[in-house]
Amino acid sequence: MQHMDGTIFVIMGVTGDLATRKLIPALHELLKDGHLQKCAIIGVANDQTATIDSILEKSKSFIPEPNSDVLQKIRDVFVYQPFDFNDQSGYQKLKVTLENLESQFGFSGQRIFYLSVMPDYFAPITQNLALAGIIKKGDNSRIAYEKPFGHNLASAKSINKAIHSVFDESQIYRVDHFLGKELVDNIALVRFTNLFLQPLWNHQYIDNIQIFLNEEIDINHRGAFYDRYGALRDVVQNHMLQLLALIAMEPPKALDGQHIRDAKSAVLQCVKVEDVIKGQYAGYRTESGVNPNSTTETFAALRLSIENDRWTGVPFYLKTGKCLRAKNTSIHITFKSAQCMVSTPCPPPQNHLIINIDPAHGFALEINAKVSGYSNQIAPVPMTFCHSKLCPNSPEAYETLLFDIMKGDQSAFVRFDEIEHSWAIIDAAHAQHPETPPTIYEKGSQGPDELKIWAEKYNFVWRD
Amino acid sequence: MQHMDGTIFVIMGVTGDLATRKLIPALHELLKDGHLQKCAIIGVANDQTATIDSILEKSKSFIPEPNSDVLQKIRDVFVYQPFDFNDQSGYQKLKVTLENLESQFGFSGQRIFYLSVMPDYFAPITQNLALAGIIKKGDNSRIAYEKPFGHNLASAKSINKAIHSVFDESQIYRVDHFLGKELVDNIALVRFTNLFLQPLWNHQYIDNIQIFLNEEIDINHRGAFYDRYGALRDVVQNHMLQLLALIAMEPPKALDGQHIRDAKSAVLQCVKVEDVIKGQYAGYRTESGVNPNSTTETFAALRLSIENDRWTGVPFYLKTGKCLRAKNTSIHITFKSAQCMVSTPCPPPQNHLIINIDPAHGFALEINAKVSGYSNQIAPVPMTFCHSKLCPNSPEAYETLLFDIMKGDQSAFVRFDEIEHSWAIIDAAHAQHPETPPTIYEKGSQGPDELKIWAEKYNFVWRD
Repeated sequence: MQHMDGTIFVIMGVTGDLATRKLIPALHELLKDGHLQKCAIIGVANDQTATIDSILEKSKSFIPEPNSDVLQKIRDVFVYQPFDFNDQSGYQKLKVTLENLESQFGFSGQRIFYLSVMPDYFAPITQNLALAGIIKKGDNSRIAYEKPFGHNLASAKSINKAIHSVFDESQIYRVDHFLGKELVDNIALVRFTNLFLQPLWNHQYIDNIQIFLNEEIDINHRGAFYDRYGALRDVVQNHMLQLLALIAMEPPKALDGQHIRDAKSAVLQCVKVEDVIKGQYAGYRTESGVNPNSTTETFAALRLSIENDRWTGVPFYLKTGKCLRAKNTSIHITFKSAQCMVSTPCPPPQNHLIINIDPAHGFALEINAKVSGYSNQIAPVPMTFCHSKLCPNSPEAYETLLFDIMKGDQSAFVRFDEIEHSWAIIDAAHAQHPETPPTIYEKGSQGPDELKIWAEKYNFVWRD
Repeated sequence: MQHMDGTIFVIMGVTGDLATRKLIPALHELLKDGHLQKCAIIGVANDQTATIDSILEKSKSFIPEPNSDVLQKIRDVFVYQPFDFNDQSGYQKLKVTLENLESQFGFSGQRIFYLSVMPDYFAPITQNLALAGIIKKGDNSRIAYEKPFGHNLASAKSINKAIHSVFDESQIYRVDHFLGKELVDNIALVRFTNLFLQPLWNHQYIDNIQIFLNEEIDINHRGAFYDRYGALRDVVQNHMLQLLALIAMEPPKALDGQHIRDAKSAVLQCVKVEDVIKGQYAGYRTESGVNPNSTTETFAALRLSIENDRWTGVPFYLKTGKCLRAKNTSIHITFKSAQCMVSTPCPPPQNHLIINIDPAHGFALEINAKVSGYSNQIAPVPMTFCHSKLCPNSPEAYETLLFDIMKGDQSAFVRFDEIEHSWAIIDAAHAQHPETPPTIYEKGSQGPDELKIWAEKYNFVWRD
């Protein structure tokens, strides 16, 4: 494990939810584990009332085991610099602060900018940093953009163009924190280091694939943001299509960043939207920050196909929503039926490979075995291994991601071509029935009634 | 579940180990579970000192949960008839006893003869039963022969010829109690009702297959029998080659008795003996009943090949012995390595499918998954399902087998062509290095040192 010294983190949007809940706690863990030694942190936000102490105090409750020495160390190297992201003079002050800290601590000048802000700010902040002379194309600073990267294909392209005038691609880290999750990282390793999966991974053996990101919580005071984005843009474009890409990609030439991203990008380009269900939970329109006539979807189900040799004829079902019955992020790969040979039932139940991401962690293979007694009765039984047990101290996603940025490892970040193909899919989904408002569904249900209609129409069973 | 009424069981060799430990306890369970209602039992042995009470008392300690009502019921319908198996007049008495019991209880005449005796007695007892007019070809009596069925191919053929002059094949049940084991029964069901296994089951994906029947115990006072037979005849010819046949057979047209036996017979015919190790544990020659110059093997390892399209180039290793380090009956299917793609180690560990039969029960699949942390390190982890948990009350092998005989279901019994092919394999194994005495190995070891030489010479790892 490398140790990184002399890094300055600049967190834009430091008073926001993500910085409070994830980024500062991740820095705490990196310091505690010794993966980070010499560092300084500059927090920026347009909030004159916030203070270093108020920011760190709020964040502390999201640190699983706060260590007082580490907290003091953070306090010692933390600078809060409030300014409006559009205010040029703020960036001038930031420049001075950076240079002072570097000279004070004797740092070599690695600067990591983390934009934990709405995507509308990605281009202006990046350009203001360049205008102030804080960053120069090809220097050793790095910049991370929180998801979503844009609002649709056109806005993503425009952001990308703007930031590419300032940064080389090698400096840009587009974050999808799912790719920092231990188990998601594991998908490619499990797929490609286990020979037994290799002949099975295609339309000849797989019946359908279902990917779920079901949430129990509502929009959680993010009304203003959420109402502009909705489920498709908030989680399908990034998390869910990344999961799909990892499951469906061709074997990369090697399991490294470039080749995995090549493979993901290639398969995303073959995805076609076949059908869409949009839903909105009852009461959404009265949430704070939400338009009372909002047609934003808080639920989406997609039927996708992948037009290549491997996946021809295999439907991919993606389903996500707020206020659903139970939290469940998982992938279910359903194999075709084995031939009927006098077992009971006949044909036998289908095999399933299940990848549980949240709240359960781990892999399960549902196979058929004999029911005890005197007959040929079989029943599905799960063969499981619990990933949490195997890896009791698996690092949090953001800790891994920040460490990767320090190391300069882009493999767990999203390349623009992947984002481009994903937005094309989401734009196509939005273009289906654009006039039809989302179906209202009850809180705590599985989602809109159309789910049942799909199961009949497409002849499959929802696995969640 | 059917109920069988009015059956008379005639146990030849009723004072022997098998009857005491297995057959009478199995009848107790069948009565307790209600699978057997109207029955009578005639025990025959050449022991004038034994009594009904002494026989039942000895047996009682082998019944897991003896039920006093059931024991009394057995006592009420049990007749002990001591005579020498070569004594014609004994069979005349037996005939009278049978007819009396049938008339006393109003039975319809189903008679089941169970020959729990040395194979030398199979032909004479069968012929004497016929001579006395107790059985007639094509009547509704059934006869079961305990394993081993003969001593080599020639003797097996001669026994088979003799009993076929008296019985139709449909009346003959050649017992291999492994086929009555829940888990062994499960092998075919698991193989053929799980689609995910189907593309994998051949030389393209399988590296080697190992079958173990390691025993910790010594010959357990069976010196006189064991010294004439040895490991190859005692357990390889029957149990181990049956396991091999179930693993290696082509998919049967249906999972019924005839088709499974057709498939097992066909694959056994393709087995070729490549190499043999014979061992004898230190001290064997001083065991009671054993020839002090004995060259009987108490340990055998075989390297076999199967000459057909599916298995070309896949070695099958069979290993069994007495006085080994640990009891272990299991099957290990080792898959080939996946391609090397920057995981650590590279190439990744091979996948294994493990079928644990004794003392553990159940299936396990050893797959690779990511080791927690920040690298591409992988490690094998077991995905398991515990068969004992799934089926806490799985019946004992002999209970299942007796019930199958009552029902007339021959699928868990061995057909003569299977026995013929198995003996041909054992005869070929004995014919290799016939002059070389077995290597002496220490009690509590893994077996002779040649095992290590094989691992190097044939480039594989023993999985036990």
